[in-house]
Amino acid sequence: MSTWSLNPDRAFPAEPTTRAIARRLYAEAKDLPIVSMHGHVEAEDIARNEHFGDPAELFVIPDHYLVRMLVSQGVPHDRMGVSRAGAASAADHREVWRRFCENWKLFRGTPTRYWLEHELVEIFGITQRPSAETADAIYDELDATLKTDEFRIRPLFDRFNIEVLSTTDPAWSTLEFHRQLQSEGWGERVLPTFRPDPVLHLNRTDWAENIGRLQQASGVEIGDYAGYLAALRAQRARFVANGARATDHGHLLADTTPLDESTASALFARALAGETLDAAETQAFSGHMLFQMAQMSAEDGLVMQLHPGSLRDYSSNVQAEYGADKGFDIPIATEYTRSLRPLLDAFGSDPAFRMILFTLDETAFSRELAPLAGAFPAVRLGAPWWFLDSPDGMRRFREAATETAGFYNTSGFVDDTRAFASIPARHDLARRIDAGYLARLVAEHRLEEDEAAEVVVDLAYNLPLAAYARRD
Amino acid sequence: MSTWSLNPDRAFPAEPTTRAIARRLYAEAKDLPIVSMHGHVEAEDIARNEHFGDPAELFVIPDHYLVRMLVSQGVPHDRMGVSRAGAASAADHREVWRRFCENWKLFRGTPTRYWLEHELVEIFGITQRPSAETADAIYDELDATLKTDEFRIRPLFDRFNIEVLSTTDPAWSTLEFHRQLQSEGWGERVLPTFRPDPVLHLNRTDWAENIGRLQQASGVEIGDYAGYLAALRAQRARFVANGARATDHGHLLADTTPLDESTASALFARALAGETLDAAETQAFSGHMLFQMAQMSAEDGLVMQLHPGSLRDYSSNVQAEYGADKGFDIPIATEYTRSLRPLLDAFGSDPAFRMILFTLDETAFSRELAPLAGAFPAVRLGAPWWFLDSPDGMRRFREAATETAGFYNTSGFVDDTRAFASIPARHDLARRIDAGYLARLVAEHRLEEDEAAEVVVDLAYNLPLAAYARRD
Amino acid sequence: MSTWSLNPDRAFPAEPTTRAIARRLYAEAKDLPIVSMHGHVEAEDIARNEHFGDPAELFVIPDHYLVRMLVSQGVPHDRMGVSRAGAASAADHREVWRRFCENWKLFRGTPTRYWLEHELVEIFGITQRPSAETADAIYDELDATLKTDEFRIRPLFDRFNIEVLSTTDPAWSTLEFHRQLQSEGWGERVLPTFRPDPVLHLNRTDWAENIGRLQQASGVEIGDYAGYLAALRAQRARFVANGARATDHGHLLADTTPLDESTASALFARALAGETLDAAETQAFSGHMLFQMAQMSAEDGLVMQLHPGSLRDYSSNVQAEYGADKGFDIPIATEYTRSLRPLLDAFGSDPAFRMILFTLDETAFSRELAPLAGAFPAVRLGAPWWFLDSPDGMRRFREAATETAGFYNTSGFVDDTRAFASIPARHDLARRIDAGYLARLVAEHRLEEDEAAEVVVDLAYNLPLAAYARRD
Repeated sequence: MSTWSLNPDRAFPAEPTTRAIARRLYAEAKDLPIVSMHGHVEAEDIARNEHFGDPAELFVIPDHYLVRMLVSQGVPHDRMGVSRAGAASAADHREVWRRFCENWKLFRGTPTRYWLEHELVEIFGITQRPSAETADAIYDELDATLKTDEFRIRPLFDRFNIEVLSTTDPAWSTLEFHRQLQSEGWGERVLPTFRPDPVLHLNRTDWAENIGRLQQASGVEIGDYAGYLAALRAQRARFVANGARATDHGHLLADTTPLDESTASALFARALAGETLDAAETQAFSGHMLFQMAQMSAEDGLVMQLHPGSLRDYSSNVQAEYGADKGFDIPIATEYTRSLRPLLDAFGSDPAFRMILFTLDETAFSRELAPLAGAFPAVRLGAPWWFLDSPDGMRRFREAATETAGFYNTSGFVDDTRAFASIPARHDLARRIDAGYLARLVAEHRLEEDEAAEVVVDLAYNLPLAAYARRD
Repeated sequence: MSTWSLNPDRAFPAEPTTRAIARRLYAEAKDLPIVSMHGHVEAEDIARNEHFGDPAELFVIPDHYLVRMLVSQGVPHDRMGVSRAGAASAADHREVWRRFCENWKLFRGTPTRYWLEHELVEIFGITQRPSAETADAIYDELDATLKTDEFRIRPLFDRFNIEVLSTTDPAWSTLEFHRQLQSEGWGERVLPTFRPDPVLHLNRTDWAENIGRLQQASGVEIGDYAGYLAALRAQRARFVANGARATDHGHLLADTTPLDESTASALFARALAGETLDAAETQAFSGHMLFQMAQMSAEDGLVMQLHPGSLRDYSSNVQAEYGADKGFDIPIATEYTRSLRPLLDAFGSDPAFRMILFTLDETAFSRELAPLAGAFPAVRLGAPWWFLDSPDGMRRFREAATETAGFYNTSGFVDDTRAFASIPARHDLARRIDAGYLARLVAEHRLEEDEAAEVVVDLAYNLPLAAYARRD
Repeated sequence: MSTWSLNPDRAFPAEPTTRAIARRLYAEAKDLPIVSMHGHVEAEDIARNEHFGDPAELFVIPDHYLVRMLVSQGVPHDRMGVSRAGAASAADHREVWRRFCENWKLFRGTPTRYWLEHELVEIFGITQRPSAETADAIYDELDATLKTDEFRIRPLFDRFNIEVLSTTDPAWSTLEFHRQLQSEGWGERVLPTFRPDPVLHLNRTDWAENIGRLQQASGVEIGDYAGYLAALRAQRARFVANGARATDHGHLLADTTPLDESTASALFARALAGETLDAAETQAFSGHMLFQMAQMSAEDGLVMQLHPGSLRDYSSNVQAEYGADKGFDIPIATEYTRSLRPLLDAFGSDPAFRMILFTLDETAFSRELAPLAGAFPAVRLGAPWWFLDSPDGMRRFREAATETAGFYNTSGFVDDTRAFASIPARHDLARRIDAGYLARLVAEHRLEEDEAAEVVVDLAYNLPLAAYARRD
């Protein structure tokens, strides 16, 4: 229980020869700028550059990864400061923070623990381990720090050495905050990403409303399927004009089977008329639209990211009480090979097209995703996502994917965070894990150290820049 | 080929720094009492406290894990002493033991080898490795030992430091042996577990007979579906009154979709009338009853254990010749996320309900089970089961599950044995593997050693006691 | 960038104690003869014993594993010397070689890199790492070497210490080159393998043509289903008479459900009449024929190899332009337990029958394949196949399968190559990985070193010989 600090060798393999190599490799990548091509930080927050709020507001309440761990042990969402739909939580924020610190042990062995430790020690200078006893002192120290100007988002952006950061924006966004950032000289550093899910999945309760927003933003009348495609095209063009590199697609399945035009038009017309389509019809339309999005990407060069396999808002009680995205999204087994065949047959060798594939089903790495990325020029294998963005998850990914896909068919590291302050921790951890994996290859004489030193830099910096370069 | 002995560092990682930490952690857990909350030792055997029989009867013949390994190499079941249906095996037990010793090499690298080595050396003091040459001498030594009073089940129960052991009992049990044990002061040490599978799966050939047994035991007339539920409730109440903590459910699928009352009633009525239902109907009824069992658990507080995904009695020849459960049960890919949704939506956040999930499909650990256990307060993730209850199986489980679920959403160690003498070996191995996994986290500076020392004790002792505490 | 050489400790674990044990174990297996029971080297090439051609012709152009890696980075097949259907590639072979050397970094971390390094250094004496700068010098050196007589296939066969090698031959082969080899005293060293896929899958575009070939070769008129079975039996007998040990079956699914005779006859008659059957019908016929092949194996003793789960010729563009088997075969999730039940129920305990199971879906190792191999006397678990025949793939296989199946229900090492010069590299790597895995068991005191020394020899030599011994 000595002073809390970060060990310089953390997350490296323990075996001394391997660790020594890992140290040297990590030193090559350690200070590279951060390239953060997929995240959920809001452009508005960067544009406004306000203070972050109190410690519970920054670290606890908005982090559904963290909150769900306390929920899993019986602490209700509202006691963690999460607002019920329609009513703000009455929880005192200092109490929320105390509850989190008292339950620090729940995070043992998790990446949340790893990231928070990095943030609290490295960024905020905390020197005591969270506990019931230390909760108040840490709260006060953090609270004071967060009130200083250096701890607003733009100074931290500089301090974190972030070269470029992509946000995730709905298809109907007017990108006003991105334009504001451009006018302030931040246009190269903060890029939008086109996320059309809310207008592609016909079974969403807010679908009709979202179509209205899309019509409004695009200025294209959406009276039928042709208008719908035109509106999507118009908004994609706006995103391209504002620096977007990529689109992002969250689908339940990876299916990409195109429907014939008349079937798609008819499904769209029925949905627009307010009819409720059945599950098979909505799924077929989603798969069809994934194919259309690939078609448009082959036209406008936006890199297509696919994140399938999460059954969203799994608990209808939690959703009813607290709303969507409260940590109750559960993965399912995900099929890629057959599902992607229509899309890859059409665009997989097209130099104007690029697709980055993510998964929550790690069995797909060696079985389907590495073979696909190791064959099709258009495909890059994305970094481990969500639950798999963890020390052992990232290690297993490299072990499962590299032997078939090599390193150069992967995207390099991609974080997927909405917690801005965790970005350096996540990139640092990825660099350490990749250094450790490469060190093992070197120690086992499967790779020379000069080669590994090149790879560790590519994975951290060059590959994500290349993978997300818009295809011209 | 020196004297056979157990190395004190067995099953620890080889890397010296990690091993040294593992030793220290293991020392914390080594001598803790055994909490054995799920097993297949018979209460009758403990109540009678008779001698175990000869070495073949104790170690070989009843252990279908062990027998199937010789069968897989062409030795027929009956030559290993397994009785054909309707006719006792004529195999000489000394010959059976010889055949096992001659084939000792088949078990290299398996947990059966590890457990037997522990048992023979540590419990029975054998100092020679099994082989054709040593078979007779070992047989004689074991046979003599087994005739002594210290090697009956109750003295061993004390010697093994078993604090509490749960048996598995059919839904129609009158629990007479548990009551006998209570009257002898063993009531806190041996607990029943309610296992209703034989009356829930309508396609079992003995289903009608089992319903008769349930009616007889419960004293509730089972003329229809309502009577059936009432009889189940009555027997559950009897189990609760006799100290039961849990129920146990072996289903082919994890499906928990409830039927409407009238459909369930009609299916039950048809089965009771002797009609053969088709596979879809029997599966639907099994899934429906899993939901009903959860409902009853939420009422009476019995912890619900689910063990899905084994295709039982896979070989119809082996089953026809030797009967059920002869080592020919083969796992299938198992879906949890969608299957459990009805049950978890209804009871997953109910403080009166607890569910412990097991799997033979280890791909579900990171993909489905850890996310479920890391979100729902009612869910705990059970220890690796059956084929996965092995050194590398347990290690992979911790690596796959911890980063998402943490340690405190797992059940701690649960053995699943019918071989009483293997209980200490299994718990000792689990403590060693957990110590080794935690030691790696410490060596990689992902956890402090004082935290790991707390966790290793929790996994061995506190967590299973907490996970199986009846919900009041 | 010093002189290129092979480290004697390559592919061993880095931890010093474990590595020292691995060295000792590897020394036991290192110089054993090579037993290569499943490969795609052509008997014709061995019979003719001509020179291999230039470096691009030997190492690059025919290796679709290697070519697809450059294709995945945007280099078209024809620039790598692959001929378009109907037109030879115009690519200059020295240019092809340069392109490969320039892209050497793409192979970092892959088994292709490992094998090529072994071949170039150990067999061909190259001392410079491939790169843009060294490409021409290496090309010249290799080209000169390949023109010498010692580098024709038969002297290399001797130098590689290959005791026996099985080829893969279509069901209609007359085995003329095998007979030539027999007449030259090579009959014990080169054996045929019966591969009937092209006449079993009714949806192949060349199916009717292949039936014609089968009729021609067998001399049995194929006018109906009975004639078809008779022709297959006649050709199997020819293979047996010419030393075949095994059959080989590449199916999309592992399904083995037999149809009734009249259904099978009718499907066959319709296909023979030129009718196009639907996907379900052709799949049903393929599954039915797998059962028939098992029946025939139980009669003639040919060991049955099953390689399911690859979706062949995934890219219709690549197939249309370049033909089949161009590195665009992508694995799918593969079910074994239910699929194999009909076959195993009929033949799984038949002493006259042997089946060796392979997979591209490594999740099946612990879940389905090890439990099946650990129960049925007829089943052996094949070595990691294709994408999984790699350092980490082989290690994961041992870790996933051994604890349930042991070592003695596996086939020992089986390479699956068409690249003759890579055979020693592949066997050497397998011996290293098995030595490393066994060394870990010894270092963790889960196995004695004398036992491990026996196992490492069995895996490399005795087990493949035993697994592929025809069942008499």
